[in-house]
Amino acid sequence: MKKPSTARLTLFAAFLTAQAAQGVPPAAVVREKVRAYRAAHEVEILRELAGLLATPNVASDTENIRKNADAAAALLSRRGVRTQLLEVPGAPPIVYGELSSPGARRTVIFYAHYDGQPVDPAKWTGKPWQPVLRDGRLEAGGHDVEWSALKSPVNPEWLVYARSASDDKAPIVGLAAALDALKAAKVPLSVNLKVFLEGEEEAGSPHLQSILEKYRYLLKGDMWLLCDGPVHQSRRMQVFFGARGITGVEITAYGATRRLHSGHYGNWSPNPIAELANLIAGMRDDRGNILIKGFADDVRPLTEGERRAVATAPDIGPALRSELAIGRTEGAADERLEAAILRPALNLRGFQGGDVGEKATNSIPTEATVSIDFRLVPDQTPERVRSRIEAHLRGLGYTLVSDVPDAAARKATPRLLRVRWDAGSYPSGRTPLDLPVSRAVVRVTSESFGAPIVELPTLGGSVPMYLFTDLLKTPVVGVPIANHDNNQHASNENLRIQNLWDGIETYAALLARLAW
Amino acid sequence: MKKPSTARLTLFAAFLTAQAAQGVPPAAVVREKVRAYRAAHEVEILRELAGLLATPNVASDTENIRKNADAAAALLSRRGVRTQLLEVPGAPPIVYGELSSPGARRTVIFYAHYDGQPVDPAKWTGKPWQPVLRDGRLEAGGHDVEWSALKSPVNPEWLVYARSASDDKAPIVGLAAALDALKAAKVPLSVNLKVFLEGEEEAGSPHLQSILEKYRYLLKGDMWLLCDGPVHQSRRMQVFFGARGITGVEITAYGATRRLHSGHYGNWSPNPIAELANLIAGMRDDRGNILIKGFADDVRPLTEGERRAVATAPDIGPALRSELAIGRTEGAADERLEAAILRPALNLRGFQGGDVGEKATNSIPTEATVSIDFRLVPDQTPERVRSRIEAHLRGLGYTLVSDVPDAAARKATPRLLRVRWDAGSYPSGRTPLDLPVSRAVVRVTSESFGAPIVELPTLGGSVPMYLFTDLLKTPVVGVPIANHDNNQHASNENLRIQNLWDGIETYAALLARLAW
Repeated sequence: MKKPSTARLTLFAAFLTAQAAQGVPPAAVVREKVRAYRAAHEVEILRELAGLLATPNVASDTENIRKNADAAAALLSRRGVRTQLLEVPGAPPIVYGELSSPGARRTVIFYAHYDGQPVDPAKWTGKPWQPVLRDGRLEAGGHDVEWSALKSPVNPEWLVYARSASDDKAPIVGLAAALDALKAAKVPLSVNLKVFLEGEEEAGSPHLQSILEKYRYLLKGDMWLLCDGPVHQSRRMQVFFGARGITGVEITAYGATRRLHSGHYGNWSPNPIAELANLIAGMRDDRGNILIKGFADDVRPLTEGERRAVATAPDIGPALRSELAIGRTEGAADERLEAAILRPALNLRGFQGGDVGEKATNSIPTEATVSIDFRLVPDQTPERVRSRIEAHLRGLGYTLVSDVPDAAARKATPRLLRVRWDAGSYPSGRTPLDLPVSRAVVRVTSESFGAPIVELPTLGGSVPMYLFTDLLKTPVVGVPIANHDNNQHASNENLRIQNLWDGIETYAALLARLAW
Repeated sequence: MKKPSTARLTLFAAFLTAQAAQGVPPAAVVREKVRAYRAAHEVEILRELAGLLATPNVASDTENIRKNADAAAALLSRRGVRTQLLEVPGAPPIVYGELSSPGARRTVIFYAHYDGQPVDPAKWTGKPWQPVLRDGRLEAGGHDVEWSALKSPVNPEWLVYARSASDDKAPIVGLAAALDALKAAKVPLSVNLKVFLEGEEEAGSPHLQSILEKYRYLLKGDMWLLCDGPVHQSRRMQVFFGARGITGVEITAYGATRRLHSGHYGNWSPNPIAELANLIAGMRDDRGNILIKGFADDVRPLTEGERRAVATAPDIGPALRSELAIGRTEGAADERLEAAILRPALNLRGFQGGDVGEKATNSIPTEATVSIDFRLVPDQTPERVRSRIEAHLRGLGYTLVSDVPDAAARKATPRLLRVRWDAGSYPSGRTPLDLPVSRAVVRVTSESFGAPIVELPTLGGSVPMYLFTDLLKTPVVGVPIANHDNNQHASNENLRIQNLWDGIETYAALLARLAW
């Protein structure tokens, strides 16, 4: 190991002196106090999480989503956070809260969301909104543990299975426990805290912009702390400075108006599966390359710092390939996952047409549908993606309609597609890695974790960061806590308990020690 | 209209004299007698059909398929046909029967099948095996008619909805009614009749070859009359001289072993839908062209007579496009349907991966499956199709397995496909159009129908004709009776009642007048 130079040591000493002058307690002190508090309250913390997970939380479920908001607001109020619900018509409320710290110069806005992805209950072991405690992962043969049998110390490798256990209620409970721990340890907050919990993030945040505009006066702050997403696949903490944007589309192609015998009509009456398969192959190869003309024109090149951050992240490729049992990756053989997610992506989320297996019949389906999501990078916009895709389809001779075409339209149109774009599209957002606030978050998080953390220029997933970075002109840094193998967006979503413990310590460290 | 030459008239007079000498009654006489019998027994005939349709008849449903065989045998016995069940282990029985006619020189073997395609009950209006009488097509707003309200004369545009109403129980009931009508009218059969009713045609006739070999001694005859399939789309009667062969395959591609967030893993973890879509596009374009190397090498060129038969068939393209509401056909714009089915076909019968619509989530599916059926023409064989497809896939770097691969196999294999070929594949079969027996069937059918009929070199659909033509070395001519819009192989299969009436007259004419 290289010996640090005297100059560097002097600089570091000066930094510590400055921190002490600000009354910032050392990382180890905060960590030990928070850890002791957590150890004494494990069951209580997990029960609070379970309680929060017991109500269905799909954004479109108006009645239940409001129950979720009320529960989250009550949770914050119990910590002395002054809460209110921010409303715009037709949207689940924002749970907003403030907790001032005397003498703090900076204000940090904590973002999380209390809604979750839709579920297909048939694919779950157990029920999505009846949290199940398990002593191991389902695929590793984990068994259910009765909640009534829960006692401290809890095995930190146990998991809580439920929709939103990790995405994104864990950070809410993590923040609450961090506040409790700091209060119990009499550690003051180094920043003023504002809390902003969204209720329709998984629906694409269709009202977030109007909410931010309406309540801009409340939302002044020096940074947003985005608490969503998973930690690094190496299980190290990571912080991220951007998120990809998103849009999505569903495309339906049509055959005859009734299912036809494939022998009597095949080669003559169009097969909508063949049509869509050829369309897909013309838009994306099986290595992830997007073949649509001009699609890459809007992509902002990476900075040197971003490239370096990716290159120095631990290489979790081999371990992850093994865990996921994949025999290849889509891009170049040596492309890192962290690099792959810096590219725009066209993902096929579903394709349905005709029948397979026992139900398959020798017939031509009447229609087929493909569902696609696009992940956008700076400086792509959903509008330009949409116009490029539609121009591509029209260039192939297609007429595009948004409603279900009737028989007359189907007959009159040689090449016809129904194209429905997702509501809730938004572009990517990114905060520079070299801002003082960026470096401060990295430093505090790393010191709390006690090991180097991963810096990601952008998260692969999508959160509407651009509204904070571009609309509110406020830096955003993401500090996720969920395990990477949390089955996010899928069935059997789960949270590894150690990740919640780490999250509590991280959020406590940021609240107690962040300064720049 | 061109006046017939004296020479042709003389020839025709000689032909009539020869027929009279053989005791063959004129076409008009037979037709009128049969029609009168039918008119007096409409309700009885339809009730017999309904009774035959009331038992589930999927070949794999061992218990019920045997009930179907017993019912079909009883139906024949009631007409004085000496019946027996021909058995080989593991197969539904063949219902076999004989009815000799004193002095007849020729023996005709009547083929039909009593099993039906599998059903998806959720897609049916009503239940597949509870026959429903309707006063019009469902899509035209047809209403159910109580069976108890049925009385003569029945509107011949009414329909019977049930699995196998047309495919292929209508010919069985049509034959029975034809025998009844001829007996009532005291018209003798001009040929000896053998009946051969198969019970697993829709499962691909896996035991037909061994049955024909085992019972070859019973099955001596001068021709097979294949009673399956629909009449021409113009509603004219048609006869066919061949049938395409068939094989099918289901191909599954794999992603990670769990569903992954498309943002965090897209572009890196393989998307099985993208993989299959690209595979399909590489095998077949959206105009029906098969792109697999060497696939067309085995295709026997058409004869001049076959081309002429197609060219002189009525052009039902425009009417059919309108009925089916299709805006284009797959092949060249001017390609006739009758020509399209002379080509080999690769039909996509199903594609399933991930979810679409409300259930769609922004994730990468764990697997995707495509189901394909191939229609073969002379001289293709299922074995060569299989080897060409597999060579094509291997040429793309794929490892092919037949069982579900475990995680270890998925991890170890960069490109892996599960490939399952259908049981019950067989090649095409074709009888020359210019044989005396071929001309005799065309003549009798046309005279009975009272108008020119369509001659199809091959049926688009598949029946195991090759076993008769190639194994038994016996000519085969197909005489179907079902309406073309019968929803064969799909939900809401139906039989237009006029087609049953026409079928009775046709089969009666062939039994009473066929001679060569």
